[in-house]
Amino acid sequence: MGRDLTSLFDPGSVAVVGASDDPAKYGHAVASQALRAPDRRPVHLVNRRGGIVLGRTAATSLAEIGEPVELVVISVPGAGFEAAVDDALACGAKAIVGITAGFAEAGPAGLARQRAVAARVRDAGAVLVGPNCLGIADNTTELYLASDRFAPGGVALLSQSGNLALELQLRGAPHGLGFSRFVSLGNQADVTLVDLVEDCARHEATSVIAVYAEDFGDGRAFARAAAEAGKPVVLLTAGRGSASARSAQSHTGALTTSADVVAAACRDAGVELVRTPREMTIVLAALSGGVHTSGRRTAVFTDGGGHGAIAADAAEDAGLDVPELGAPTQDRLRTVLWEQSAVGNPVDLAGMGEQRPLSYADTVAELLAAEEVDAVLMTGYFGGYAASDGGLGGGPAGGSVLAEGETRAAKEIVAHLALMSKPLVVQSMYPQSPSCRVLVEGGVPVFSATEDAARALAAMTGRAAACSSPGAPSGTPVESPSEPSAHLLSGSESGSPAGPSAHPLSGPASGVPSGSPSEPSARPSSGSPCVASPGIAPLPVARPPLRDPGYHGIRALLEEAGVPFPPAREITDEAGLLAAAGEFEGPYVLKALHVLHKSDAGGVALRLADRGALLAAYRDMHARLGAPSYSVEAMADLSDGVELIVGVNRDPRFGPVAMVGLGGVLTETLRDVAFSLAPVPASRAEDLLHGLRTAALLAGVRGRPAVDVAAAAAVIERITAVAAAHPEIAELEVNPLLVRPEGALALDARAVLG
Amino acid sequence: MGRDLTSLFDPGSVAVVGASDDPAKYGHAVASQALRAPDRRPVHLVNRRGGIVLGRTAATSLAEIGEPVELVVISVPGAGFEAAVDDALACGAKAIVGITAGFAEAGPAGLARQRAVAARVRDAGAVLVGPNCLGIADNTTELYLASDRFAPGGVALLSQSGNLALELQLRGAPHGLGFSRFVSLGNQADVTLVDLVEDCARHEATSVIAVYAEDFGDGRAFARAAAEAGKPVVLLTAGRGSASARSAQSHTGALTTSADVVAAACRDAGVELVRTPREMTIVLAALSGGVHTSGRRTAVFTDGGGHGAIAADAAEDAGLDVPELGAPTQDRLRTVLWEQSAVGNPVDLAGMGEQRPLSYADTVAELLAAEEVDAVLMTGYFGGYAASDGGLGGGPAGGSVLAEGETRAAKEIVAHLALMSKPLVVQSMYPQSPSCRVLVEGGVPVFSATEDAARALAAMTGRAAACSSPGAPSGTPVESPSEPSAHLLSGSESGSPAGPSAHPLSGPASGVPSGSPSEPSARPSSGSPCVASPGIAPLPVARPPLRDPGYHGIRALLEEAGVPFPPAREITDEAGLLAAAGEFEGPYVLKALHVLHKSDAGGVALRLADRGALLAAYRDMHARLGAPSYSVEAMADLSDGVELIVGVNRDPRFGPVAMVGLGGVLTETLRDVAFSLAPVPASRAEDLLHGLRTAALLAGVRGRPAVDVAAAAAVIERITAVAAAHPEIAELEVNPLLVRPEGALALDARAVLG
Repeated sequence: MGRDLTSLFDPGSVAVVGASDDPAKYGHAVASQALRAPDRRPVHLVNRRGGIVLGRTAATSLAEIGEPVELVVISVPGAGFEAAVDDALACGAKAIVGITAGFAEAGPAGLARQRAVAARVRDAGAVLVGPNCLGIADNTTELYLASDRFAPGGVALLSQSGNLALELQLRGAPHGLGFSRFVSLGNQADVTLVDLVEDCARHEATSVIAVYAEDFGDGRAFARAAAEAGKPVVLLTAGRGSASARSAQSHTGALTTSADVVAAACRDAGVELVRTPREMTIVLAALSGGVHTSGRRTAVFTDGGGHGAIAADAAEDAGLDVPELGAPTQDRLRTVLWEQSAVGNPVDLAGMGEQRPLSYADTVAELLAAEEVDAVLMTGYFGGYAASDGGLGGGPAGGSVLAEGETRAAKEIVAHLALMSKPLVVQSMYPQSPSCRVLVEGGVPVFSATEDAARALAAMTGRAAACSSPGAPSGTPVESPSEPSAHLLSGSESGSPAGPSAHPLSGPASGVPSGSPSEPSARPSSGSPCVASPGIAPLPVARPPLRDPGYHGIRALLEEAGVPFPPAREITDEAGLLAAAGEFEGPYVLKALHVLHKSDAGGVALRLADRGALLAAYRDMHARLGAPSYSVEAMADLSDGVELIVGVNRDPRFGPVAMVGLGGVLTETLRDVAFSLAPVPASRAEDLLHGLRTAALLAGVRGRPAVDVAAAAAVIERITAVAAAHPEIAELEVNPLLVRPEGALALDARAVLG
Repeated sequence: MGRDLTSLFDPGSVAVVGASDDPAKYGHAVASQALRAPDRRPVHLVNRRGGIVLGRTAATSLAEIGEPVELVVISVPGAGFEAAVDDALACGAKAIVGITAGFAEAGPAGLARQRAVAARVRDAGAVLVGPNCLGIADNTTELYLASDRFAPGGVALLSQSGNLALELQLRGAPHGLGFSRFVSLGNQADVTLVDLVEDCARHEATSVIAVYAEDFGDGRAFARAAAEAGKPVVLLTAGRGSASARSAQSHTGALTTSADVVAAACRDAGVELVRTPREMTIVLAALSGGVHTSGRRTAVFTDGGGHGAIAADAAEDAGLDVPELGAPTQDRLRTVLWEQSAVGNPVDLAGMGEQRPLSYADTVAELLAAEEVDAVLMTGYFGGYAASDGGLGGGPAGGSVLAEGETRAAKEIVAHLALMSKPLVVQSMYPQSPSCRVLVEGGVPVFSATEDAARALAAMTGRAAACSSPGAPSGTPVESPSEPSAHLLSGSESGSPAGPSAHPLSGPASGVPSGSPSEPSARPSSGSPCVASPGIAPLPVARPPLRDPGYHGIRALLEEAGVPFPPAREITDEAGLLAAAGEFEGPYVLKALHVLHKSDAGGVALRLADRGALLAAYRDMHARLGAPSYSVEAMADLSDGVELIVGVNRDPRFGPVAMVGLGGVLTETLRDVAFSLAPVPASRAEDLLHGLRTAALLAGVRGRPAVDVAAAAAVIERITAVAAAHPEIAELEVNPLLVRPEGALALDARAVLG
């Protein structure tokens, strides 16, 4: 259940080593903050010169304090860090926060120092945050050990950048966002991001976990901790482009994980991935209220056509649907609005709001009550009547009456929401107006920019669905899970039924919690909390290493796991060739083995109609290439098939990562591929395939029949499980995986050992 | 050179009909504003009940004024509008602003009324803005005839929505954005968006033209006016999604033009297309300073790694490049920074800014001076030292010294920019701080959000390139224009050289100004103004209508214009079939003509090796389909070719619009197509092809040879010119257009008459 961090977040006593009266020193800022709650616990200041620091007598050493200290913050120059750690441990410290820099980020020697000190801390049964961090804070225990002061609230902020944490604070304030905890991650020598996510998951006062990280450490463990947190996790990270990758390397000495892998892990784990501090703030404002729904059908309404049209576009850009409202809803809206109002969607009050501000509330009520509406986006002028600084012009007539009406409407809207828990997000030209403040205090996210409101609503919708099927790409309808094995067998030529070892995800011993994505499960109803998102399958127990890493060796391994291949024989001479040809019917395929890039080298011959053609191809190929051996195979029927590519690469942080996509000549050109942490359950594999840009090919285009996606998905589950069970395999690729109207068939495979 | 709108924007006298003391009436707001500049020109208030209005004696009618009035604003109830217009014209009015609603937006009867009144105004030699508008304002002539007060500045705002105009005003204020003019477009019964763009192009005080429009009227004329404006035009529009299209229809009675067409027209015309008021504000803030460059190579720098990495990603997301800096630049940066600073790109001061704020200015100077840097993006804490409210925490030590240093750095940065006119954009956590205000006053756009700064920089970069080659998709390297005719002939089988009629874009009589995209032209140097963007080719003079709209008729029309086809003969019986087969070699293609969807109906037979196969195919096809005639064609060699689709549709607003894209089985699935207003010059056609997602196919993948893109582009120019010269053709499609390593060949064509 994760490490016990009680000494870190709720220590019985605290000491700040390096406390100083010099405002240029960080130890001054930390000590000042630490003293904000002097009655909560003893706070000792340590300065090697002693004297008076911040009005208190400073101890010259931890030993001089004369009593045990549970948590020690160390902010001393680099060379003195180890000695300070030893003193702290001698003093009985169970938690150390290391501000001091000059460790892993400074090069190999620093890394070695860091490892040694972390080992000493662990051996003493203590925990270490940092080094090279900016401190921690816990508003729920009045623990203030960072230079910044964080407004209290429900967001736990775990950040590798102090300035970004500061920006998030500044941005959050207008949205009423506050923080339960702040941890500056530093070099994560001992306490890691994973430890902190696990602890914040258990922390009752934390409703959302916000992370800025460049170094994920054990990325898979982070993804699993996030998936199991039972509360939203929002991740801001860098390194999508080449430039930021360079920057991250020079920043903390950490390799920035590739963007595809991070995005896949986040989707699998149900983590909201954001790109900027602004987007992080929007999503936190959306999620901190705890209101969400599984649907994306959004009603947009305004009191002026322009805003409605812009907001409807922005909503669709954000992945929401803006369907026309049903006739009953339109009829009900007609009863509360006037003739010129538009009630299709967007709903446009068309001046009715100025006549009767309560029509805003009536409209919200009708929209929330509509069965076909999952969420509501209100946009435009609302807030303007109550705004004291209502624009540069004179503002509308009858200001105070309208202002009162608008504020009353805001109160009614909040009351309607209490009865009908669906997401409402507001874009207002006057987000700071009294009426908008009523909405914010009532838990309604209010933004000044249309696209921000749409992004917030996207974060609040589709969440329940994301929990039950984290593999579904955003905005793609989730196919109902099917029974993979039935489909698989129908397409299997090898006929070997998959044994338990081929199904590491579905057996009771696999450790996958019930409700795993590989099993059909009831979709949570609208508004139900996203309590569990078991999206990260555990790595299977490692299997005995692959004996023969050649083509036929990897084929055998995959076939054993239930991956169907056409019949094939490895041969080394003409006699073997003819014997093999006798074992199955033509047309044949001949492949030269142990030849790099055999296709490009002319080492693959297809459509060899009979033994004669096969022999001729062999003689030609052998004369050209002189390969040590060849594979004779039955040529699969390619008509009506779609070629896929399935690969698994081992990422240094996230472990085995699967890629599935369109194969064939367009693979590199279109780069139409999707990623997921391996092993990939069949239901998620189906989602990945249905999310491809060329997914329409699978359903059949121009009169072609649909192919057996479920069979392909079942094979993908098996291939990725094999890769995950063999840590010695750095890369495993099946290309092409032919999917036909009935079944799927692997036509080639290769493995690279790590 | 456009309509004379002097009476509208700088009238010698003004009357407000419907002026009122009742603050609930719009005539009250307009009259109040009109009186803000009573000394500039006579302002008459007219109220049919007379009496005192806003402290002045109101006339009971225009006639009662007793002297001519040049501009009359009419804000009376609907039924009285026509009478008021007649009175105004009788009074000598040369410009009328119609506030009154109830015209085209109210249905067909309203539209008829509107047309009649517009005709009366035009017949009198006057101009009419509206009806159903909210007024106009011109800060340069102290003309205030709208309810809102606009801060003065260089933006001319032409808007179909009053609330959106208000939002743009509110958003622009923190960026120091002001307005030269505001026009509420209303129903554009007489004065159109095009008239206003043309007039604002001539208006010296206007530096940027900002448009919110749902109804473009003559879209092509708008695009041409924007392309020829000689100053940036920024367009906010709605209707990308289905929902907003519904909304727009109900809003002004205007069909919203499809998103693809609008996007293509904007790209052709060099118009910045934006999606939201927030994005509009960002782009206006970026463009109003007049600083831009043709390159996109961006140096990112910060004083804290996190912001640098996030900003580098955001810059790449916005289409900018963030290349590693050259060694000489890195060396020079090392001389002004300290050891821990990163100088690769992003540049990270790594704490140096806090030690010596002027290092910000030194870094900007070095980056601006670097040959490999087109633009600079500064991001993060800058502004924090000078911010009086520097965060919730105590703020950094030595505050006032750092604050002074930071403000001095800001001044130095502004001075550096004056010497080296390259774009600098700043993201600051403290955009309102004194040091950031120095930057804003010095013309540097400052934003609080990283992505806003990146978007602004994208608007300031690549502009010169966009002018010389508006067809280039954003972020795609522009190929140097080639000589189309040479390439075309190499691939032409018909051999008919293109006559002048096939080159409506390159002849001196075509009216295309020199520097047209179809001719190679020197790229404007960095920082040169974007004075002309002749991206919209005029429609060619209509040619005699197509006589035979059948397959062979459209083939003949295209062949005459220089589009190469394989040899073909139309036949109606076996004798004709055999005669045709004697005229050219096999293999043959047989197509049934006058059959709807002939491919799907089995009306196309390919690869008929000889006369026997051709005859057999004919007998089978004729028995099944009984078509009135057939086409016998020489089968083209498809190997090493790529199939394209080229089509031209006639849009009700933008006229002929060309589509080019990947043909074949993936056309519908990938929807990999690009649009441009027709006729499409060959150089732009090349850009469109190179911008396709599958453009790599054209360059050759998996060992295939590259195909002759220039030949395809030349053919596209000819096809689109034919469509543009034949207004009776509603749709023209060549599918496939086969492009091979040598030349391009049209394999099928169809036309739909309108």
